[in-house]
Amino acid sequence: MPEILVHIVEGRSAESKKALMRDITEAVVRNFAVPAERVVVQIVESPKSDKMRGGVAFDEM
Amino acid sequence: MPEILVHIVEGRSAESKKALMRDITEAVVRNFAVPAERVVVQIVESPKSDKMRGGVAFDEM
Amino acid sequence: MPEILVHIVEGRSAESKKALMRDITEAVVRNFAVPAERVVVQIVESPKSDKMRGGVAFDEM
Amino acid sequence: MPEILVHIVEGRSAESKKALMRDITEAVVRNFAVPAERVVVQIVESPKSDKMRGGVAFDEM
Amino acid sequence: MPEILVHIVEGRSAESKKALMRDITEAVVRNFAVPAERVVVQIVESPKSDKMRGGVAFDEM
Amino acid sequence: MPEILVHIVEGRSAESKKALMRDITEAVVRNFAVPAERVVVQIVESPKSDKMRGGVAFDEM
Repeated sequence: MPEILVHIVEGRSAESKKALMRDITEAVVRNFAVPAERVVVQIVESPKSDKMRGGVAFDEM
Repeated sequence: MPEILVHIVEGRSAESKKALMRDITEAVVRNFAVPAERVVVQIVESPKSDKMRGGVAFDEM
Repeated sequence: MPEILVHIVEGRSAESKKALMRDITEAVVRNFAVPAERVVVQIVESPKSDKMRGGVAFDEM
Repeated sequence: MPEILVHIVEGRSAESKKALMRDITEAVVRNFAVPAERVVVQIVESPKSDKMRGGVAFDEM
Repeated sequence: MPEILVHIVEGRSAESKKALMRDITEAVVRNFAVPAERVVVQIVESPKSDKMRGGVAFDEM
Repeated sequence: MPEILVHIVEGRSAESKKALMRDITEAVVRNFAVPAERVVVQIVESPKSDKMRGGVAFDEM
């Protein structure tokens, strides 16, 4: 607790994704005063063809 | 806002998935009067072996 | 199958939310050729103070 | 109804995942008195590099 | 890990919901061989007017 | 893109929740080089009786 789901499209580097998850973990620890061990972050990634903003798929932007 | 997650099993064509996401986007714009640009739709797809209805996995139906 | 989650902030009328869920249901039936009975749509609503875009909470926009 | 999402990292056997989904289905039927046909369970799996607990990615534990 | 989200409509008793969450926890421990401490289950509940199956809202069934 | 869902139990102050969402937004901007405007964070909150860790509901801890 808490559990954070991050919904993105494929294409980010493993480094940037891990850095983001670490920063989110620290943000939870800092603001909610919970031990880091309690914080779980999972990235839910879809292909660019499976995500759309404004009616346009990410592989067509 | 809003963000829509569509949970399905693998096997749909890219065309039908994009058509669905476009139709959902239009439905949000029409009913909530928000600009299309604000609407994000993401398909969260799992293998047929990783989804079950009625106690039966989709790869065993 | 499929299950659709729609994430929004509080404040929409019951009518517009039901109309949206009906339109999404029809969009799934039309594009995926599944019986309507298989389509489940759930709205996950948060207070405006619990959602943020661009670093600004919806109750401060 | 209900729809259950199970968020895990890659690496579990297909057998253990199906057994879990079957057990969850039975738990819903038993506790909520709904027909099994109404219960949908989907596993949302991410690579070990895309999930973190306590600030450590699962591929670095 | 794992984190389980259970999407339902309002109306279930606190007892049945806790019994379900306990049974799901045990199912994860049994099938995935993880300590119970690692299993988090959260019920995401919406009003009956905010959920639809087959194009019919749960408050109109 | 990306959309972040934060699953917690009731009881956090509005200030701490907003501070967390702001920090998460900044973490995404910093690590993924996207404009803040693209980042949406929503807190999905459940009563303490509707969430469980290790087989114990949060209202019984």
